Amino acid sequence: MAVSTRSTRIERVPSAELRLAEDNAALLHAMGIVAVHLIASPGAGKTSLIARTASKLSSRLRPGVIQASLTPEVGSNPLSDLDCPIVQVDTGGRPYLDATMVREALAQLPLADVDLLLIEEVGTLTSPVGCLLGENLRVVVASLPEGDDAAMRYPDPFAHAHAVILNKMDLLSHLRFDRNLFQKAVHRVNPGVPIFEVSCLSGEGLDAWGVWLLNQLEKV
Amino acid sequence: MAVSTRSTRIERVPSAELRLAEDNAALLHAMGIVAVHLIASPGAGKTSLIARTASKLSSRLRPGVIQASLTPEVGSNPLSDLDCPIVQVDTGGRPYLDATMVREALAQLPLADVDLLLIEEVGTLTSPVGCLLGENLRVVVASLPEGDDAAMRYPDPFAHAHAVILNKMDLLSHLRFDRNLFQKAVHRVNPGVPIFEVSCLSGEGLDAWGVWLLNQLEKV
Repeated sequence: MAVSTRSTRIERVPSAELRLAEDNAALLHAMGIVAVHLIASPGAGKTSLIARTASKLSSRLRPGVIQASLTPEVGSNPLSDLDCPIVQVDTGGRPYLDATMVREALAQLPLADVDLLLIEEVGTLTSPVGCLLGENLRVVVASLPEGDDAAMRYPDPFAHAHAVILNKMDLLSHLRFDRNLFQKAVHRVNPGVPIFEVSCLSGEGLDAWGVWLLNQLEKV
Repeated sequence: MAVSTRSTRIERVPSAELRLAEDNAALLHAMGIVAVHLIASPGAGKTSLIARTASKLSSRLRPGVIQASLTPEVGSNPLSDLDCPIVQVDTGGRPYLDATMVREALAQLPLADVDLLLIEEVGTLTSPVGCLLGENLRVVVASLPEGDDAAMRYPDPFAHAHAVILNKMDLLSHLRFDRNLFQKAVHRVNPGVPIFEVSCLSGEGLDAWGVWLLNQLEKV
């Protein structure tokens, strides 16, 4: 018994937004900045991954962060110990960043002092993927507790990712999680996309992710 | 450094949707059905909770399920073993159910054979809370791996819940999770709302949740 509903898919990218995203991309390119857009469910570990990545790569390049939140009322922020420029964007309840918000955030950042811009999206896998920000790379951060079928249930963000992080590998022995199934489901919607199994708690797997990211920066 | 963005909050409830939600509520009331709307992040355990709840209460009442998914391509469904009517709604990529979809789903259900209708939302904490379906109760299913500050970062669904489930308690010893902090953060946005600490894996805490739910059904 399936109910076939009307197609109510949100329209992908309004042209004004697309133009703003292109402006952002041009500005970032002109300033020699590579921007990585991190997309994940709530609690998957985006913030920890940003903290780990920025700290790991800070001897090689100069990171900067744009961090979105639904509300100004956030708790402790793992990024506050980072020695890099951070702009927090309160989306005012809107469930995802848009190019306008990123444009305003870019105006607050010391762009000449940044090589790698990590953009933390609001925590959701259901935002329209077409909502481009002007980023160079999109990375989905999944985590073991979300289940090995995440890419089956939420295919869009996985289908449009340049890389997938599978975080919280430290929990592997405590969960029913089939790594092969996860990988197959991801590659079904995005064949060949690199998947990095990591733990932001133990640090496991973060070297490979860092190497890949540095390689990508050279290509951009 | 905070960027104050324009207020772009999605409008809460268009009046046509509200009218449809009221129609759904009237239909459910006329049929003696109590509807519970389950809201959660991807992987928090909504489906497992529904399976456990329906099976636990099936000697006392007759459950039915409406299950939303973003895509028809789902993996194994823990609900398929349940001996109760289930309607699956493919939202066609839309990140939440609306009253129209629920209305169509209700038309597919044998309403005379249902006392308790469990409605599984698409997995997200960022949908507009004002998107009412005609339900009697809203329940947020959080889970330990999402962090003890979930209600601080995603206050809206918690603020509008009649109950909060904290699932995956079996992982407590493997995570950094402060139960007091979680409770404080929830009660800050929704004072006094009942919080049930459960594990859908071990069954821990599900009795108290079942008793509360049965009590609510008597009140409606």
